[in-house]
Amino acid sequence: MDLDGTLREIADCSVLSDADAVAGYAVDWTGRWRGGPALVARPRTVEAVAAVLAACARAGVPVVPQGGNTGLVAGSVPPAGAVVLSLTGLDAIGSVVDGVVTAGAGVTLAALESFAAARGLTCGLSLASGESATVGGAAATNAGGAEVLRYGTARARIAGLRAVLSDGAVLDRCRPPAKDNTGYDLVDQLIGSEGTLAVITDVTWRLDPAPGERTVLALAFPSVSEAVAAVPVLRGLPGLLALEWSDGAAVARVAAHLDAPAPLPTDGCWVFAEFDGAPEAAGVVAGLLPDDRIAVGAGPEDRVRLWRYRARTTEAVNAAGVPVKLDVGVPLEEFAAARAAIVDAVAAVSPDVEPVLFGHLAEGNLHVNLLARAGDRIPEGLAEELESAVLEQVLTFGGTVSAEHGIGRAKRAWLARQRGDGQVALMRRLKSAWDPSGLLNPGVLFEREDR
Amino acid sequence: MDLDGTLREIADCSVLSDADAVAGYAVDWTGRWRGGPALVARPRTVEAVAAVLAACARAGVPVVPQGGNTGLVAGSVPPAGAVVLSLTGLDAIGSVVDGVVTAGAGVTLAALESFAAARGLTCGLSLASGESATVGGAAATNAGGAEVLRYGTARARIAGLRAVLSDGAVLDRCRPPAKDNTGYDLVDQLIGSEGTLAVITDVTWRLDPAPGERTVLALAFPSVSEAVAAVPVLRGLPGLLALEWSDGAAVARVAAHLDAPAPLPTDGCWVFAEFDGAPEAAGVVAGLLPDDRIAVGAGPEDRVRLWRYRARTTEAVNAAGVPVKLDVGVPLEEFAAARAAIVDAVAAVSPDVEPVLFGHLAEGNLHVNLLARAGDRIPEGLAEELESAVLEQVLTFGGTVSAEHGIGRAKRAWLARQRGDGQVALMRRLKSAWDPSGLLNPGVLFEREDR
Repeated sequence: MDLDGTLREIADCSVLSDADAVAGYAVDWTGRWRGGPALVARPRTVEAVAAVLAACARAGVPVVPQGGNTGLVAGSVPPAGAVVLSLTGLDAIGSVVDGVVTAGAGVTLAALESFAAARGLTCGLSLASGESATVGGAAATNAGGAEVLRYGTARARIAGLRAVLSDGAVLDRCRPPAKDNTGYDLVDQLIGSEGTLAVITDVTWRLDPAPGERTVLALAFPSVSEAVAAVPVLRGLPGLLALEWSDGAAVARVAAHLDAPAPLPTDGCWVFAEFDGAPEAAGVVAGLLPDDRIAVGAGPEDRVRLWRYRARTTEAVNAAGVPVKLDVGVPLEEFAAARAAIVDAVAAVSPDVEPVLFGHLAEGNLHVNLLARAGDRIPEGLAEELESAVLEQVLTFGGTVSAEHGIGRAKRAWLARQRGDGQVALMRRLKSAWDPSGLLNPGVLFEREDR
Repeated sequence: MDLDGTLREIADCSVLSDADAVAGYAVDWTGRWRGGPALVARPRTVEAVAAVLAACARAGVPVVPQGGNTGLVAGSVPPAGAVVLSLTGLDAIGSVVDGVVTAGAGVTLAALESFAAARGLTCGLSLASGESATVGGAAATNAGGAEVLRYGTARARIAGLRAVLSDGAVLDRCRPPAKDNTGYDLVDQLIGSEGTLAVITDVTWRLDPAPGERTVLALAFPSVSEAVAAVPVLRGLPGLLALEWSDGAAVARVAAHLDAPAPLPTDGCWVFAEFDGAPEAAGVVAGLLPDDRIAVGAGPEDRVRLWRYRARTTEAVNAAGVPVKLDVGVPLEEFAAARAAIVDAVAAVSPDVEPVLFGHLAEGNLHVNLLARAGDRIPEGLAEELESAVLEQVLTFGGTVSAEHGIGRAKRAWLARQRGDGQVALMRRLKSAWDPSGLLNPGVLFEREDR
């Protein structure tokens, strides 16, 4: 029997092979990356996931796990002939026990947060893509987001998980003992492995007490270096949930997109500090800047009104064209210099491209969105040239070519540049240890080797 | 040139080959396990560690990394003919930057805590063996201790590390970016790997603000199940640093050893709750038990006077004989039943053996110390029979055969019993990926395979 027929015999599993139906799983959400899967399997149980993987292993067909397909580095874009293993059917949420809950890989972050909020809790992971992004994808990519400084990345939120190996064997570490020193840590290795080692089917997530009423402060610093200098003071303030930044030009772009004039000057760099509760901090913050460079969003409406100048940046960028998106990090002490060098490097490659810069200030993170000033999209050749120019600068400053998004297919040429050939060789050996057949998400992290 | 001569040519490295000198590195601190190393190499730089490993790789000689040699599962006991790689010469401590400090693997936990305390900070890892145990050993064994509920195990304390692979290549992740999603997590895999994957040379440790004045409450519950029932209330109290337990009989043993009558009844199970600050909690705790079953240790002297009934258990046990030491964990809801079953299982094997039971209550952890009632030591055959009886019970209750101590050589037969053949096979493949030659700490975690 062919693979299509074998997969259709698996209980609790839908199979799509119609070209139109499959096409929806073939392209990433930026539209920049496009693949050509042969089939899409959508199991609804762990047993069905195992059966799909075992069948593909027998057939020697590559498998690409896919959650909400919101990744930005083509990590879930299937190469031609692969089977897409969509995990969105694993959407059950268990009960809260000892502050953790086990959720199916296909549960969206929004659904998990809604479940938590109904119990006075939070999952602590806040992504712009949360309506579609899944807990399985968040685990597989060690997702971060705006509240990392308070709650950590996905790695810090995950207490256990279940996964299926490429041969169909189930690895159950959903509820490991509270302390357990028996052999190698397998859970942490799967977190951030981008679907190349095993397919995550369930994630046990830590829930924290939800914050109370939030307050956001916006601080319009005249320069990036002044914004960076304020970080130690801001980080020390009680109740801090998020510390974000946007170039003044990025804020101005949002203001124009929303037709909502910015309440503060956009000549330099805005910092957004969100607090759990009222900012008793206001006194300290007041000393950092003149009053006409500080805005306070207290109460739900005011807060959203102020936050939107940061939160809706992606929306404003997408309205202007198809961006090239990079996600880099540098040591905080190099932040201002690195940001300036990135702007210069982009200008040197093309004066017709505008960098829109924003990100998570506490971790020295820059989301670099590059837009053609004339609108529409940047040609692929130029896009690669721009990426190279930016990432070279990042490495010069001792930074990371991927703070959050991962390597995927898009950045694999840069993995060895940052981590060195020795570490990449070790990673390849680890890949073989987990997935001896090499059928799990081939081409992600590493170029495919002829086998 | 022979290996001895080659090692002696390495700069910044002492070599011991004299039988008497080597003998000190051959036996574990309980005296139960004994090996026979050929040589001891004691490098003082990372470069020297790399040179030792490269030389041993060329000679095909196994290497056993050793820190303070305070492990309890024979993980650092060298097989005959191996080279002991003592890391105690790597004893430098760097500067505190952004709340972390990089320490050489040979820095003792006491030295790290003293360094932290001088700056108003704490390393958050409190072990009875802290005067000898090293940060490298703590990392390699994912050490826990009394304050895990507040600060986590070593895994939670470690922000980065440097290690040398078995071929002498240096893996530097001492100061990874604040967020970095470039490939597989290598740091977390080395934590708890017991020296079988690479040799840890430096550890970047998170420091937290030190607690203020501590207060300890002792609660003498009439039974273990009543003690367990109080855990949710106690865990919810603000400022809790540690939540420990001891069998009443273990407390009575300490009292007799110290010739210091216990201030509360020892008929059941004592719980020790330590707080950062004064226990505003006293009111809540008062409702749990009558006044004559609660003692408060406030102020440094009173606190130590009360804590000693838990803290000096190991000393009291060692004064009575050579214990067989087990370290297990069970789900808290099974704790009382599992403890009773363990006591029964020991009695069924031998009425001449007394179990002394205590541990970390918050994580359902039991340190099971077995003593011959007649003093001296339990014969090895009986020791193995007792271990089997206890660990079978632990598995029956869904627990772990090693909450903290690790697998080492002592418990490797139990690894597959708990984790299953599939996970152990995967762990063996991971071992080969890191250490293709198999020369790093062979016989730890897994039986040696013929090669």
